[in-house]
Parts: sequence; C-alpha cells; structure tokens
Amino acid sequence: MFDAKKTKNEAVGWIRDWFTKNGDGCNAVIGISGGKDSSVVAALCCEALGRDRVIGVLMPNGVQPDIDASKKLVDFLGIRNYTVNIGDSVSGLIGAMPSDIELTAQTKTNLPPRIRMATLYAVSQSMNGRVANTCNLSENWVGYSTRYGDDAGDFGVLDNLTVGEVIAVGDALGLPHELTHKVPSDGLCGKTDEDNLGFTYAVLDRYIRTGVCEDEATRDRIDRLHRANLFKLRRFDCYEPQID
Amino acid sequence: MFDAKKTKNEAVGWIRDWFTKNGDGCNAVIGISGGKDSSVVAALCCEALGRDRVIGVLMPNGVQPDIDASKKLVDFLGIRNYTVNIGDSVSGLIGAMPSDIELTAQTKTNLPPRIRMATLYAVSQSMNGRVANTCNLSENWVGYSTRYGDDAGDFGVLDNLTVGEVIAVGDALGLPHELTHKVPSDGLCGKTDEDNLGFTYAVLDRYIRTGVCEDEATRDRIDRLHRANLFKLRRFDCYEPQID
Repeated sequence: MFDAKKTKNEAVGWIRDWFTKNGDGCNAVIGISGGKDSSVVAALCCEALGRDRVIGVLMPNGVQPDIDASKKLVDFLGIRNYTVNIGDSVSGLIGAMPSDIELTAQTKTNLPPRIRMATLYAVSQSMNGRVANTCNLSENWVGYSTRYGDDAGDFGVLDNLTVGEVIAVGDALGLPHELTHKVPSDGLCGKTDEDNLGFTYAVLDRYIRTGVCEDEATRDRIDRLHRANLFKLRRFDCYEPQID
Repeated sequence: MFDAKKTKNEAVGWIRDWFTKNGDGCNAVIGISGGKDSSVVAALCCEALGRDRVIGVLMPNGVQPDIDASKKLVDFLGIRNYTVNIGDSVSGLIGAMPSDIELTAQTKTNLPPRIRMATLYAVSQSMNGRVANTCNLSENWVGYSTRYGDDAGDFGVLDNLTVGEVIAVGDALGLPHELTHKVPSDGLCGKTDEDNLGFTYAVLDRYIRTGVCEDEATRDRIDRLHRANLFKLRRFDCYEPQID
C-alpha cells in the first residue's frame, strides 16, 4: 500500500537536502499550470523551504482557459508569483520561420512548452533560483512530455510517482480537491491526456506498479510508447572516439 | 598521437549507424554558427548521410556579425539551409517579463541559445529531422554551454573531442581554414571564449588528455569549473520514493 503521508514527508526532506547541496538559500522556481503536478510540487517546496523561497510562474500563451486554477493555487499557498505571457515569443518565432517550411501539428504543440522552459530559466537566473521539473512517473513512462520543454528542470520531485500517487500526496498536503482531482490535460491541444494517450491513468498506473494490464491491446500500446520514449529519460547519445 | 583521419571516419560511421537505429531516413538538423564545431558536425553528417539529408539553420539574433561565415559554410557544403531570425522571439519574451524582475547579464546571455534550441526543434519536427548537438569535450569539461540551449540535441558528435581534436578533424575533412581556425567566440557577449574562461583551449585540452597543467592557479580554476558544471552532463536529480 502506498503511504501518501510518508512519501510527502520523505519528498519534503529530499527537497530540503537537495537545496542544501545544490543551491543553499536559492529559491524554487515552478511553472504553475493549475494542474495537480505543479500544485503538488509547489506545496512540497513550501513545506521544505518555506513559502518565501517558492516562486510560481504563470505562463499563459495568449489567453489560457485554465489560468484561474493557477491563480487559485498561488493564492492558496501564498507564494510570490509572476505572470509571463509567452504569446509574443511564440508568435515571434512562428512568424520568423521560413514560409516554405510547413509547421506540423507536433511542432505547434511542442513549441510553447519550450518557450515556457526558456521563461522559467529567465526568471530563475534573475532570482537566484533552481527550476523544478513537474513531470510524473506515469507521463515519463510513456513519454508524455516535450523534450527540453516541460521535461527540463534542475530537480524533479514527482518523476518517480504515478499520477494516482501524486494525487494522494496532494490530498495529504491538504490541497484543494478541485486542483488535485482536475481532469489531466496538457492545455496544448484541447484534449484530455487520457484522450491523447488512448488509455486511463488508472490502467497505466496499475501496469507500472504491478505489471498487470488485462487488455492486451492497451498493454501493447503502453509498451510501444514506453520503448519509443525511453530516450527522453537519458542524455542524448554521443560518439566516443577510440583514443590510444 | 591523435589520428584525425581515423577519428573522422569513425565518427562518420557512428553517425550513419545512429541514424539507422534512431531515425532511418531522417535528416540531420544543425544550427550553423559559422564556428568550427557546427562546421565540422555538418561536414561529418554530409559524409555520413549525403548532403541531401543535412539541413543547416542560421539563427541570427537581430543582426549577427558572424553570419557571413555561416553562409560560407552552407555554400561550401551545398546543403539546404534556412535563416530564422530569433530576434522577435527573444525580445517578445524579454518584453513579457514582469517589470519588477531585473534580468541579470547571465539571463540575457543564456536566453538566445534556448530560443535557438526551440527553433531547431521547430525545424526538425517539421522536416523529419534529428537535432545535432555541437558541443565539444573542452566546452563540456568546464560547462561552457547553456543548459537546455546549445547543450541540447538528439545526437552528439564532438562531445568527446577536445577543441584541438575538432580542428584537426575539420582539417581532415578539408574544410576552409578560416572556418575551422577562427578564434572561438560564443557570439553572445562580444568576448572570445578564451577571454571568458581565463585560459586557452590549448592549456585546457592538454590538461584533459594528459592531466598536466603547470600553472597551479589555472589548474585550480579548471578543476573548480569542472566540478561546478558536472551536473550539466547528467539528467537532473529526482526524488526516489521508498515504495514497499
């Protein structure tokens, strides 16, 4: 059985320890999407470092429908927060692309998370920060992230917790139910994560933790996504010369 | 003794093999700065994949003084190339930053490389590409790169070759002397790399390969930079829960 309270306390200790070793006195900089992952990471950082050392960054792309949840979270935690609209930077880059390159849907989906990464580092490098990664194990398992976008960061808190475990930790933290139990959506393409993936997180989480997935087609799909995305979890391959 | 021709041939074979396994038929996408690193990577990719499968991307930030060298390189190799001016995207992001955050010099130096990374991936994801990393071992050794900026990529060719070795490989490839023997500069702050680092690449390369560096202050400085930047060569640290 997963003990959410124990995990919460362990994670808080780990964050405190990581900052002592890798940025004593630095601030945690967190991109706040209004979803459970950034909410839980921000709350854990508050408990570990004190809320004065936690900075939330809201990064709408033009108008963003779920920005209200982000505001609710930073108000609930009482953390310093900034809103940086990435719209001009995103459209500035799209406008500069050569007219004979037709941008794929994939390109348009992954560009905003990369501009958000650049934004978080701009805040972090100006405010004595360390950037939190907010990906969870379930997303990592099937590569549901943007390389060098939301999969970037200086430290990761949820990378080894499934979606179900993250929600349980959120409940143990006493976060508002509407933030942690919201239907997960990347906010990029209008669909829920589960629509995009083709299976539920409940099924995926169970498969990750127990190896059991009754539906063969789903299991094959998860395995295929997992194999195809393992490269995201390591540094890129490099040529290694034979030097005598 | 370093055998530049042998290394060149090995690297060509490695690139060919990597693409067969990780993107059969894909194009190599390379940010072209006009310096030796991008020149050598582009030339190696041409030899490995054929020039039809190599795409050069020139990414001036507004006006860029060394853009002529970039044009010379793509003309010399005869590769498809695009120019994407990142100026609007960079200024769009700076303009969106909250007025009460004072951007540090470090922020302004590292933002353009991150926007270039986003640009390379926009080209790559629209043109069936794989993004080349162009960092070399000497730069990696002392962390002379921007995290999630020029240190990103899908495959790395020079990451285990010193600056001197990269130049020798460039000569073995028959690249124009003015491209491969240019004084290295990141083009970001107007200084040469060696000005910024406080020692020459010759001294650094020798220390990396032989462990010898007569000047104690320089050796200490290299060791200090190396220790402080090792984190860039691995994935960020993650909390790992104890799950029974």
